[in-house]
Amino acid sequence: MDVPAYFRDRIPLVDRLLESVIPAASERPTALHAAMRHVLFPGGKRLRPVLAMATAEAVGASPERALPMAAAVELVHTYSLIHDDLPCMDDDDERRGVPSVHIAFGEATAVLAGDALLAAAFEALASIESEATAAQRLSATRELAHAAGSLQLVGGQVDDLCVDPAVVDAAAVESIHGRKSAALIRASVVGGAQLAGAAPDTVERLKRCGFAAGVAFQIADDVLDEGEDDPCSLVRVMGRAGAQHRAEELLVTALRELDDLGDKAEPLRQLVQFAVRRET
Amino acid sequence: MDVPAYFRDRIPLVDRLLESVIPAASERPTALHAAMRHVLFPGGKRLRPVLAMATAEAVGASPERALPMAAAVELVHTYSLIHDDLPCMDDDDERRGVPSVHIAFGEATAVLAGDALLAAAFEALASIESEATAAQRLSATRELAHAAGSLQLVGGQVDDLCVDPAVVDAAAVESIHGRKSAALIRASVVGGAQLAGAAPDTVERLKRCGFAAGVAFQIADDVLDEGEDDPCSLVRVMGRAGAQHRAEELLVTALRELDDLGDKAEPLRQLVQFAVRRET
Repeated sequence: MDVPAYFRDRIPLVDRLLESVIPAASERPTALHAAMRHVLFPGGKRLRPVLAMATAEAVGASPERALPMAAAVELVHTYSLIHDDLPCMDDDDERRGVPSVHIAFGEATAVLAGDALLAAAFEALASIESEATAAQRLSATRELAHAAGSLQLVGGQVDDLCVDPAVVDAAAVESIHGRKSAALIRASVVGGAQLAGAAPDTVERLKRCGFAAGVAFQIADDVLDEGEDDPCSLVRVMGRAGAQHRAEELLVTALRELDDLGDKAEPLRQLVQFAVRRET
Repeated sequence: MDVPAYFRDRIPLVDRLLESVIPAASERPTALHAAMRHVLFPGGKRLRPVLAMATAEAVGASPERALPMAAAVELVHTYSLIHDDLPCMDDDDERRGVPSVHIAFGEATAVLAGDALLAAAFEALASIESEATAAQRLSATRELAHAAGSLQLVGGQVDDLCVDPAVVDAAAVESIHGRKSAALIRASVVGGAQLAGAAPDTVERLKRCGFAAGVAFQIADDVLDEGEDDPCSLVRVMGRAGAQHRAEELLVTALRELDDLGDKAEPLRQLVQFAVRRET
């Protein structure tokens, strides 16, 4: 599936937004700011920020209203990549074809760049201009902080680090995917809806949509990576066909939650499909 | 100077509050939650949370109104201690007489426990019950996130790691103290005032008070530690008497900003004096 035009068109906006919230590389300490920017620019697919914007649009608001959440989720995602790559974690020397942050800047700066990006996420969510009210920003802050916390993203990473390939089953893999990956994708969707002032029952539907789409997105990653070596891969546990089938099943679940939202949810539907059926 | 009664009486309240926001050690992943609790309980002086409460009282609100900030600043402080102790940073095997988190739980869990505590700080600030409005919480969130970010706490730690003892002078030491230590103490005071609904000019005065008190607190630390070996110590740079004199000078500056606040600021005045003149 090709990158939807909606998605492609919004990436420069996300880049400008992130540029506006992270101090310039010339700002002191310069090594720290260069390290923070190293994974952030040019960055990856920017899936999470565009999901937040498309969700605001799906519930009848302008996509710009979700910009504080769009920046915040990308900053949390980037921090988690830097810490995941550390020698004491996955010990990855490369990220997106370039040296990972601890290789390029040293381990201490990598830990600290991640820390600063996590703090910057909450500053962005509280500060970036938007028509969202203070109460709506506060709801989104609760959602994001919970998604980034010990019961979700961080807890998922802890469990991922000690997966025993001999005993892990599909349910255990999905539990880790759910916390390590899907929680932040769910927060992107839920936070976008909250900033847009969506009704509580709509937020609940979008929460289920975001979670199912998030797990499916991570399974699609397992399929694209082949996932034979990774102990925490659904491809290793149930084979490529089984994993693909499970991702499609979750995609149906995710899309069903959007049924009542009409035409204005079309960009969000396309993004959710792209997240699961992309080819890179 | 003895611990002021105001201070001592509020520590159990802070402990109960922190207990209520961090998942039980029995909650999975159990190693992660045990690691998060390892430095948090019994904890240190709880200076930052009690400062937030005393500041709310100083501007005419109940100290309980500042509880979201009280919890948040202690969680940020605790995360920073865990990451500072890491082998790639200060490489400290002990903290408050017990093994540091990476010694007790391993390096990956220490990095992740710090990360989760930082996220938990923002969840606490957005969630803990208080009469503060959403707009007041949002102001406090901006203040805390900025204090924890690359231009303050994290930037100060980066510079502290590469201090050159041959060239560092008093101004450079104070710049690091200002960002690494004083910014979070200032945020405790400012956030307490913001949650209490203080007027903007009062917040500005408290900002200057908190910063001066924060630098003086860190110099007092240098004096208590003797500070001969630490390259970033005012005692090493200007001698014990000079450092003590500078701390007293900053204490006068901090207290002067509280002159107009009357009797209700008496607990805050006592705390600020204790922070600088304490004997442990």
